[in-house]
Amino acid sequence: MTKKAVVLLSGGLDSATCLYMAKDAGFECYALSFDYGQRHSAELEAAKSIAAAAGVKEHKIINLDLRLIGGSALTDDIEVPTGDDIDESAIPITYVPARNTVFLSIALGYAEVLAAQNIYIGVNAVDYSGYPDCRPEFIEAFEKVANLATKAAVEGQKLTIQTPLLHLTKAEIIQSGTKLGLDYGLTISCYQADEQGLACGECDSCRLRKQGFVDASLPDVTRYV
Amino acid sequence: MTKKAVVLLSGGLDSATCLYMAKDAGFECYALSFDYGQRHSAELEAAKSIAAAAGVKEHKIINLDLRLIGGSALTDDIEVPTGDDIDESAIPITYVPARNTVFLSIALGYAEVLAAQNIYIGVNAVDYSGYPDCRPEFIEAFEKVANLATKAAVEGQKLTIQTPLLHLTKAEIIQSGTKLGLDYGLTISCYQADEQGLACGECDSCRLRKQGFVDASLPDVTRYV
Repeated sequence: MTKKAVVLLSGGLDSATCLYMAKDAGFECYALSFDYGQRHSAELEAAKSIAAAAGVKEHKIINLDLRLIGGSALTDDIEVPTGDDIDESAIPITYVPARNTVFLSIALGYAEVLAAQNIYIGVNAVDYSGYPDCRPEFIEAFEKVANLATKAAVEGQKLTIQTPLLHLTKAEIIQSGTKLGLDYGLTISCYQADEQGLACGECDSCRLRKQGFVDASLPDVTRYV
Repeated sequence: MTKKAVVLLSGGLDSATCLYMAKDAGFECYALSFDYGQRHSAELEAAKSIAAAAGVKEHKIINLDLRLIGGSALTDDIEVPTGDDIDESAIPITYVPARNTVFLSIALGYAEVLAAQNIYIGVNAVDYSGYPDCRPEFIEAFEKVANLATKAAVEGQKLTIQTPLLHLTKAEIIQSGTKLGLDYGLTISCYQADEQGLACGECDSCRLRKQGFVDASLPDVTRYV
């Protein structure tokens, strides 16, 4: 029987690497993306290209407008901080309330429909950047919920949240994906990419990514403005 | 300081009672409903009327089309079973994959934005009807996730999932709401209510509700076809 996995795919570097790792682990992959009113809709175009390049079985994009509940620079009308404005000690204002909880929940529903027992999410504890829902203890707690929440779980099919990037540095992530044939030129990490998907090169996310290519000793294939 | 609560409000009997209980407990209430491609959209109209009658501070309706992931009679093109077709031992096919997990997750994001520390959900272990995500152990596990997932939790503001209906019978729920002034004529429980919100009187949900009024020795104010 084919092993199936739902892969949360934002169009960024991490989730794209996750997808290639899931594929490499022998899973038939079902990519799941969200149109949640994010500013950088170029990300969704990137997600489509990555899903196609990886040859996923199915790619669903769920409409979920989190702007209605507000509270984040990515979805509200708040300036995205750059350079010296970034307070490295604080939880970034680019944090979307309960985002990973919401995305994992919908992935859980999708997994149940597919009878998939694995969900891949590209969270990372090294570069976790202050997001509370990227921590290992959060993932463990969600896995417990997942195994109580569904009909499949009641029937004994254990669901696993796969987090292959959890303890990798950005450089290690880039090296892994490159080995698996992922073209990082397709991915977008920038918080304020333009309509063509060109990165600003200055925001928190761009800076982490740039340094990752430097540390990986690999050419930075990112398309900048 | 005003105590705030997010209340999941479907437009049904249970969630409406929950809202009145939250109000009675002194909370400023923020109702949250979902347009998830359910057949019975009359439910959403009912939710609006109930929210207005209860005098909530705000009522948000989030668009989230779960039909995209399929898997349920409420959102797929599957017949809703009635009468003798109902298999009482099985998890009903009206089950929406991971629904309560998804709804609680979005409520969690809304609660964080509001700095609310309470989420009310009308789950019930007595009449839980085979839904795995209505069980106490599911709610406890989700509360743990909630307290690890958010910036507010990291800063020490504990979030509580309030389930005042958990151990009440349908009759006790109806008696409680009636005492608090809730007009059950505004609520819709039917899985296949028509556009005017008239109930079929025959589906699983209608049967439970009917019996509830009988057991509560209160007149059934439901509007039937």
